[in-house]
Amino acid sequence: MSGNTFGSLFTVTTFGESHGPAIGCIVDGCPPGLELSEADIQPELDRRKPGTSRHVTQRQEADRVEILSGVYEGKTTGTPIALLIRNEDQRSKDYGNIVETFRPGHADFTYWNKYGIRDPRGGGRSSARLTAPVVGAAAIAKKWLFQKFGTTFHGGMTQLGEIVIPFSSWDFAAQNPFFAPTNDADVIANLESYMDNLRKDGDSIGARIDVVANNVPVGLGEPIYDKLDAEIAYAMMGINAVKGVEIGAGFASIAQRGSEHGDEITAEGFQSNNSGGILGGISTGQEIRVSMAIKPTSSIRTPKRSIDKLGNPVMVETFGRHDPCVGIRATPIAEAMLALVLMDHALRHRAQCADVKVD
Amino acid sequence: MSGNTFGSLFTVTTFGESHGPAIGCIVDGCPPGLELSEADIQPELDRRKPGTSRHVTQRQEADRVEILSGVYEGKTTGTPIALLIRNEDQRSKDYGNIVETFRPGHADFTYWNKYGIRDPRGGGRSSARLTAPVVGAAAIAKKWLFQKFGTTFHGGMTQLGEIVIPFSSWDFAAQNPFFAPTNDADVIANLESYMDNLRKDGDSIGARIDVVANNVPVGLGEPIYDKLDAEIAYAMMGINAVKGVEIGAGFASIAQRGSEHGDEITAEGFQSNNSGGILGGISTGQEIRVSMAIKPTSSIRTPKRSIDKLGNPVMVETFGRHDPCVGIRATPIAEAMLALVLMDHALRHRAQCADVKVD
Amino acid sequence: MSGNTFGSLFTVTTFGESHGPAIGCIVDGCPPGLELSEADIQPELDRRKPGTSRHVTQRQEADRVEILSGVYEGKTTGTPIALLIRNEDQRSKDYGNIVETFRPGHADFTYWNKYGIRDPRGGGRSSARLTAPVVGAAAIAKKWLFQKFGTTFHGGMTQLGEIVIPFSSWDFAAQNPFFAPTNDADVIANLESYMDNLRKDGDSIGARIDVVANNVPVGLGEPIYDKLDAEIAYAMMGINAVKGVEIGAGFASIAQRGSEHGDEITAEGFQSNNSGGILGGISTGQEIRVSMAIKPTSSIRTPKRSIDKLGNPVMVETFGRHDPCVGIRATPIAEAMLALVLMDHALRHRAQCADVKVD
Amino acid sequence: MSGNTFGSLFTVTTFGESHGPAIGCIVDGCPPGLELSEADIQPELDRRKPGTSRHVTQRQEADRVEILSGVYEGKTTGTPIALLIRNEDQRSKDYGNIVETFRPGHADFTYWNKYGIRDPRGGGRSSARLTAPVVGAAAIAKKWLFQKFGTTFHGGMTQLGEIVIPFSSWDFAAQNPFFAPTNDADVIANLESYMDNLRKDGDSIGARIDVVANNVPVGLGEPIYDKLDAEIAYAMMGINAVKGVEIGAGFASIAQRGSEHGDEITAEGFQSNNSGGILGGISTGQEIRVSMAIKPTSSIRTPKRSIDKLGNPVMVETFGRHDPCVGIRATPIAEAMLALVLMDHALRHRAQCADVKVD
Repeated sequence: MSGNTFGSLFTVTTFGESHGPAIGCIVDGCPPGLELSEADIQPELDRRKPGTSRHVTQRQEADRVEILSGVYEGKTTGTPIALLIRNEDQRSKDYGNIVETFRPGHADFTYWNKYGIRDPRGGGRSSARLTAPVVGAAAIAKKWLFQKFGTTFHGGMTQLGEIVIPFSSWDFAAQNPFFAPTNDADVIANLESYMDNLRKDGDSIGARIDVVANNVPVGLGEPIYDKLDAEIAYAMMGINAVKGVEIGAGFASIAQRGSEHGDEITAEGFQSNNSGGILGGISTGQEIRVSMAIKPTSSIRTPKRSIDKLGNPVMVETFGRHDPCVGIRATPIAEAMLALVLMDHALRHRAQCADVKVD
Repeated sequence: MSGNTFGSLFTVTTFGESHGPAIGCIVDGCPPGLELSEADIQPELDRRKPGTSRHVTQRQEADRVEILSGVYEGKTTGTPIALLIRNEDQRSKDYGNIVETFRPGHADFTYWNKYGIRDPRGGGRSSARLTAPVVGAAAIAKKWLFQKFGTTFHGGMTQLGEIVIPFSSWDFAAQNPFFAPTNDADVIANLESYMDNLRKDGDSIGARIDVVANNVPVGLGEPIYDKLDAEIAYAMMGINAVKGVEIGAGFASIAQRGSEHGDEITAEGFQSNNSGGILGGISTGQEIRVSMAIKPTSSIRTPKRSIDKLGNPVMVETFGRHDPCVGIRATPIAEAMLALVLMDHALRHRAQCADVKVD
Repeated sequence: MSGNTFGSLFTVTTFGESHGPAIGCIVDGCPPGLELSEADIQPELDRRKPGTSRHVTQRQEADRVEILSGVYEGKTTGTPIALLIRNEDQRSKDYGNIVETFRPGHADFTYWNKYGIRDPRGGGRSSARLTAPVVGAAAIAKKWLFQKFGTTFHGGMTQLGEIVIPFSSWDFAAQNPFFAPTNDADVIANLESYMDNLRKDGDSIGARIDVVANNVPVGLGEPIYDKLDAEIAYAMMGINAVKGVEIGAGFASIAQRGSEHGDEITAEGFQSNNSGGILGGISTGQEIRVSMAIKPTSSIRTPKRSIDKLGNPVMVETFGRHDPCVGIRATPIAEAMLALVLMDHALRHRAQCADVKVD
Repeated sequence: MSGNTFGSLFTVTTFGESHGPAIGCIVDGCPPGLELSEADIQPELDRRKPGTSRHVTQRQEADRVEILSGVYEGKTTGTPIALLIRNEDQRSKDYGNIVETFRPGHADFTYWNKYGIRDPRGGGRSSARLTAPVVGAAAIAKKWLFQKFGTTFHGGMTQLGEIVIPFSSWDFAAQNPFFAPTNDADVIANLESYMDNLRKDGDSIGARIDVVANNVPVGLGEPIYDKLDAEIAYAMMGINAVKGVEIGAGFASIAQRGSEHGDEITAEGFQSNNSGGILGGISTGQEIRVSMAIKPTSSIRTPKRSIDKLGNPVMVETFGRHDPCVGIRATPIAEAMLALVLMDHALRHRAQCADVKVD
């Protein structure tokens, strides 16, 4: 209820702060009998981890995951799976100068007012570092969904600032530091120089991230509130820095007519996907399509006006190690959240509807 | 868990179908001692109800609400408040011809596949009629929030198809059939003729709806999953036909630099509101700003291809009474969902943080 | 969260007060496709209803149930099932003289202190009348469990005051006004004269109720907190007037040795049932055995000392219509709660473990 | 939903198995600003830990707790508090001979049938060792409740087998290895010789444990399902080996008359406590009184009949290190569960009723 648990039947309860001794989570509700080891989880954490290119934060974290429970002789037992990641490169002193001030665009002001506590260590609990345990948990969900339904997840950055990135294939997203779904060398070079200039300016930039899921069974989603699209919106908007979420045609729907928007069905299946794979809050079996807007990082070297805890005016410049575009590392996180939503709804669906036959 | 309850501490559990005998809800968790009668609820239902202009469905429903419990001698008792609304204009036979087919863009296909049941009566449970109990429940939340914090809600249509509606004042939204926040007669006339033409075409159109809340206390929202923006996204995306949600600068954040986006703070308060009143998932005390995309109505007279339950191809034209732009009546619904989110988080906040002092 | 919802996947949310216009509930999570009509529910309500013998309250209520939603063409649709029961014999004025005082043994004192509201109408929300919607909801669970697993429920009164009632067969419980599982006419006559004397004394008495479930599948229950026995204890202790709950050997376990208590297993199955059909919080497939203590009714004519809202001493005698032994009507309620627990756990079990094969 | 989280607003999610690498929990919902360090938690764990006398298991565990998150500069921050306890004396090989058989009275049979997994390592997840994290979490709740309301907890063993232990003072419970609330040397000597004989017999025995809470504020508990007594029953029955729970007069209520049972109130307060401090599911402000029956340990050296996974008959004798009376170490666990229930309801109460004034 205090917001640190994601999901209802497949739950992920996380703990930890950016610069505390450790972060981690408890995954509850995983079906028993799934083959699982750290080797299934580590690759997803490696996709997300910092320090992998000059365009992201230089914090050095191995993000090595340890499974503490819930697995016996290589298989899940149906009991809680605890994941532990020790923080290795915490530097509390980096943040010493900001203890008494509220950094613009950050959660400092709101945490202080809500909890009466100001944990200045790298954003404390509000740091994007806390997405690591979720990515670990989602690796379990991804494996189960793939084994059960063949479900796959892909995603990438489709816009950086004003630069719209042309789509070629999700496969290319793994081949450049931006998760850009293209193998066009000019585009990548353009992104690189854009980021290099940005860093020189001491500034940051927003981005658009798209994620998709394929081979999603029809029928997932619980109307009328826990609709699949509602839960996806909740999951995505909850990712640090996300300011907007679209499903399918999204905001383009505003200018569409019904004669255009409603996806026709033939014996071969749906003929378009304006719905983004969800109708009435329930999956159609088509590709689930989600797009999101990520705001520019708030930690920048450019000075901005703010106040301290006593209300006195101050100027804030943020040094330390920060992502100049948090969107760059957001793809594996967004995939993870989508996987968690689908996993949860797969279990919820069979709780109520396991006996349904429609043939 | 089957998705028919909204909220966690201030919960609204709804029931009913578009053409069943009645719809309604149970509101649980309302603080005791609030003065409450049907007269507090009916005006909100009247704002949402059908048949109020030629631009919306002509279904005739008084949407008269009856309080069945939870109020004694004019005050809430702290026990569940049940609201009952009898359906008066149900016409099951209108839908006789669509029992065996899946209307494009509708939930027919997904409900059939999920539940093995095809309730053809006006969309059954998936009908937007089911937003009526929520609007009723939210009237209670609005009253409590206003008495407690002075919180107020406003909203309106800011785009109809390609027509961007200029903003003058939310007060004007009550003075035209579109909830348009303008008193410019030319704009209204333009909207009217646009809708008239659309009806002649047997087609439908999308819209953009904005809602805001003012005098929201700082500190509402539960990181790191039940963030206030995440919960708002969940609430809004769960409204029928919504395909996209933005908070604050929303998708415009993509092209913003950090030096522009991060809202500066001075002794006079925040100097801009790109955050939409939420930082780190917690309310800042500024205006909460939400925008959403609503797809065009799927029920149109224009024929579209589909299949029946056996997979045979059919052409579908939908007659009966439908809103050609569901966005028109969406404003009170979106306000209601925002009020429910804030109410729930106001209670959640004081559960954990009632003793916090920051002065 | 305010305590008016029972269950997690098969949920029953109730509303209403003893002397308000109506009581009822919303049942959410029922699997679709179950044949259901009022005729399935009414008989269970009739078993519980008041006024059926001279040994219970003379309040006259038909307790006629109306299904408002969730059923289409005689089958459940998977959407919420709302049950409505209008109160017919409410007499607010009966309680006029107790508005300002706290009746000993009643919830008056605690409701007043918790909510700041004193609803004197027959105990308001705390009345045992509020078990009626639950009994209705449980009729749905019972039907589904019987169709799915052949699960059956039985129960009865096994002790009235000091009188231990010898057990013959649960079938006899339906043949006397006490739900006594015996057809011994002398025993029944003894109970009748005991109750007649009690009524003359203006006093009340406690009772022991036992309930069992047979053909419960092995594997229900979620360790380590939502154990099946823990949830049964919660369900039973939540029934009005219950002060103690036992599973299997119960308090007799204290004096047992391990060599006696642990139920041996042979190829024919378990050789005893000290466990009450639950080991490690999970059903064994044996009979589930539950026993509970019910306190004497607090509403008696015998005067007792109390205070009023201002703290002044008063003497309280309670007139009106009351059960001199609330245990008499408790059997169908206890069966109902057991059915709801099993139903909920049947759905929870298959959510996580639908794929488990142990043969 | 898979049963590994206790509580609704102050939640404890545990993980771990008896002989895995570590056990622990995440405590969510703790109010911010509470002074907290390991020194507040360790003493409670020490009261529960094994190996402290010859009458309990000789497993050697320091049960050293590490706080991984949620505390900054000695105070809780309002974010999740993770507690980690490394297992130090796990001996998986002790259990090698029982992998294929189901020990009578144990959860082996039910876990196997539920999950299709047989974790033979000391009962795996079903071991009473998993109460350690809960005791740790409850230390936080106890501290908060004491600071806020002055609430205190006491408990002890009041019966061992047939030996009823006379009550002198809860203070004495800390002064003997049985948590017996007496300083009568003869009674203690009697208990010691009883246990010594039992060990020689290779057998085990049941016990009765009582726990109380004082200075509990009036008004805690959420009718009509999450009543305080219902939640206490759930908490206690969920403790390993508990088979019965009583509140206040408990099963003695059966033979009581209403004229005796209903606690009278005078200006000095309640004149008796048959209610056990709870009326209508809400705390009265009196002492909360709970009693429970604990079955004899199932792990005994005396051979008993059982079957293996293939259904073949086997004889089972359990060697290894076991408590001959699990009731001996149950007192701190029962206190812990009571503290967690009260903590959770203290937060729930103020969510809904923070504004209530009754004076």
